[in-house]
Amino acid sequence: MNSKAQGLEQLKQVFGSQFSDHLSARKEHSCGESYVSDRLPDAVLMLDSTQAVAQAVSICSEFSIPIIAFGTGTSLEGQLVPIRGGLSIDLSGMNQVLEVNAEDFDVKVEAGVTREDLNYNLKNSGLFFPLDPGANASLGGMASTRASGTNAVRYGTMKEVVLGLTVVTPNGDVIHTGGRARKSAAGYDLTHLYVGAEGTLGIITELRLRVFPVPEQIRAAVCSFPSVSQAAQCVIECMQLAVPLARVELLNSCQMGACIKYSNLHGFKAQPTLFMEFHGSNTSVKEQVASVESVAKDHEGDDFRWAENLERRNELWTARHQAWFAGLALNPGANAISTDVCVPISKLAFCIELAEAKAAELGFNCPLVGHVGDGNFHLIIPFYSDQPEQVKAAEELSHYLVKQALALSGTCTGEHGIGLRKKAYLLEEHGVHAVQTMGLIKRALDPKNIMNPGKIFDL
Amino acid sequence: MNSKAQGLEQLKQVFGSQFSDHLSARKEHSCGESYVSDRLPDAVLMLDSTQAVAQAVSICSEFSIPIIAFGTGTSLEGQLVPIRGGLSIDLSGMNQVLEVNAEDFDVKVEAGVTREDLNYNLKNSGLFFPLDPGANASLGGMASTRASGTNAVRYGTMKEVVLGLTVVTPNGDVIHTGGRARKSAAGYDLTHLYVGAEGTLGIITELRLRVFPVPEQIRAAVCSFPSVSQAAQCVIECMQLAVPLARVELLNSCQMGACIKYSNLHGFKAQPTLFMEFHGSNTSVKEQVASVESVAKDHEGDDFRWAENLERRNELWTARHQAWFAGLALNPGANAISTDVCVPISKLAFCIELAEAKAAELGFNCPLVGHVGDGNFHLIIPFYSDQPEQVKAAEELSHYLVKQALALSGTCTGEHGIGLRKKAYLLEEHGVHAVQTMGLIKRALDPKNIMNPGKIFDL
Repeated sequence: MNSKAQGLEQLKQVFGSQFSDHLSARKEHSCGESYVSDRLPDAVLMLDSTQAVAQAVSICSEFSIPIIAFGTGTSLEGQLVPIRGGLSIDLSGMNQVLEVNAEDFDVKVEAGVTREDLNYNLKNSGLFFPLDPGANASLGGMASTRASGTNAVRYGTMKEVVLGLTVVTPNGDVIHTGGRARKSAAGYDLTHLYVGAEGTLGIITELRLRVFPVPEQIRAAVCSFPSVSQAAQCVIECMQLAVPLARVELLNSCQMGACIKYSNLHGFKAQPTLFMEFHGSNTSVKEQVASVESVAKDHEGDDFRWAENLERRNELWTARHQAWFAGLALNPGANAISTDVCVPISKLAFCIELAEAKAAELGFNCPLVGHVGDGNFHLIIPFYSDQPEQVKAAEELSHYLVKQALALSGTCTGEHGIGLRKKAYLLEEHGVHAVQTMGLIKRALDPKNIMNPGKIFDL
Repeated sequence: MNSKAQGLEQLKQVFGSQFSDHLSARKEHSCGESYVSDRLPDAVLMLDSTQAVAQAVSICSEFSIPIIAFGTGTSLEGQLVPIRGGLSIDLSGMNQVLEVNAEDFDVKVEAGVTREDLNYNLKNSGLFFPLDPGANASLGGMASTRASGTNAVRYGTMKEVVLGLTVVTPNGDVIHTGGRARKSAAGYDLTHLYVGAEGTLGIITELRLRVFPVPEQIRAAVCSFPSVSQAAQCVIECMQLAVPLARVELLNSCQMGACIKYSNLHGFKAQPTLFMEFHGSNTSVKEQVASVESVAKDHEGDDFRWAENLERRNELWTARHQAWFAGLALNPGANAISTDVCVPISKLAFCIELAEAKAAELGFNCPLVGHVGDGNFHLIIPFYSDQPEQVKAAEELSHYLVKQALALSGTCTGEHGIGLRKKAYLLEEHGVHAVQTMGLIKRALDPKNIMNPGKIFDL
């Protein structure tokens, strides 16, 4: 029996029915969304405590078995693909909200709690957790990919809201980072090292998060524009006026048409559209709306359509969150690449123009949806895997867009992470010495390279 | 000639008049504020470019010469003390503002630019940089100690406003971290690793920083309370109401008396006092003021005194920034320890009560000044070095306060850093495994331990 087989056997002995090497379980844990792979983990472990994770990691460390932490399986860049096999540790059973400190706006949760679970738990507290990637992802996974969503323009990304972590290190130790004070200058910022590390440095098992008071007033509006450029210009100017928009999402004509169809939206036009939300006191919301309406008019925006009640607002944002599936539904059976570039806000309209022009040149009609207040947008490039020319064109378009974003001082990924597909861009974006520095950290913390090996960079 | 002497000789050859081993230069670069030491660096190098720093670091690396980066010499925890001798690299000549991107609210500066220099440079741009530690510190130094100041409650600390860095690594490579996009999920967050690393991982030579639009309306007010507790309770409630205060500073009776005397403030009482500033649109400021006035009344606060114009406002904040020297002036010739604990906001009043009671018990009349919206306050403990009993009592008080803060889920340092004095507390706050993880990173990135050795932790 080789070392890996021995280790797996030991895991089976120790964890009993929490261990599974059935094909179905392995298949379920072999990838996230938007990334096709035929690699499977050797086994799956369903764990429900930090202590159990630490014990499992100790065994994996002893036998050098690769480990991938698994939340809801919704990552987009292949972060969950077990390219060297090994163990998938499923944390969906770690689903407890451990503390709600309403008076200090912080909570402590287990890593498998999803963003919707947390908000459900908070629903009578006057607090909410704003971050909302399209999927109902686990909070551990969201931290690991430095996720954000539609509210980041006002409330920040996981980088801003994670206050501290419990992490199982690659040798099975348990560490606690950060804390409950609003600020601290005590030592290296380990919290931010693990946020965005895509599981390559350790397994996040608990998170302390900032939560926010539910605003006195919430209003949502929709405004359509003659062109994507004019919509983007409207957003740029609102940001430059420092209007504290809570959400401002851009959908191009193609995406808007897809959403109308997929989510049965009534009374909307398949035109470039901004979905907006305003949070604040009554007077503050009134001020914000007046500012944005005036800027929108300057860019030939239509009159605002208001989602007057909670039901209408939910309908709107559900449609927005289903944009990815709505886009996919345009080309039944097709795969798609979701680009994820993010540029300084002043370059946004130009970058989107470049994207749309190149898409047209290559014969694509792509849905485009973006967290434009952050300068971040996703072009959904559909392709049929059995059409090599189309696959090539899709890759060319995706590649072109990253190149343009980097040339505009932007990043290759605003919120999806590097995973497997963007390693070369990481190098281009940060340079060889910076990526070498990341590599030094990885090797120092995970000398056996068992934590999600092969992701972010090659060692 | 030993290796160190050889290295210093080579530095002298290469850098000519930028190199000095005169006693006066060495003395000037031997410590910051509030930390007495008789160790001197072997030499001082006045450098003005990233390239020059990289060249100097390469030589130091070759000859294993310790390096301490020096900005304005205002750190408080002994970060600048050359406990193993070596080279002090003075970056005050790196004083250029390299870029102002007003449309994206970001700037790029050299590390020796001070916060006041930057604001002077921004003065006609409609932008400002809010962070203001008491001293007019260099921005490189502020990043290295994760500094903040009176505006952090609204605008965040250096952790929140540093968007990217240029860093010279311990082997003399130059790396660039972060970027201009508002968010990115590209690789490990090196930016936040260097922010707060106190120069132990590399030398920050350039910073990209977030700046903010000057608010439409700024109003400053002062309100005194019968007790420190009532003032702190007022702040706690305002924070819990999510009033977006730009500044809220607490001074106890002793500190207020000292400031009135030192800064010739007229018409103020030596009573527990809040200095506040409100930023926003006219209507937003009106709302904020109404909320805070109402909460203050509930806690027996006096009527607000307004600093109606810029001159009066500056007078007020200058007095606040001179609080440290005002406190020292109460006991001519005395030294002082400035504590720096930070606790969750709900624990603030209780923590301050403990501090004041213990100070009284030990016979001290301490000025207390705090960034109370963050839960952070400084007790200024005066002592005469030639009175061993008093030195011991001062240390006991400082120690007691850290212990209480940690028990209240707080931190031993909100904004001054660990330096030399708080290493044991770092261990207590984060635990041995977390500090070991920090040590792994330090050893991996600086295997010769030449970057500010002996600070933050012992290796």
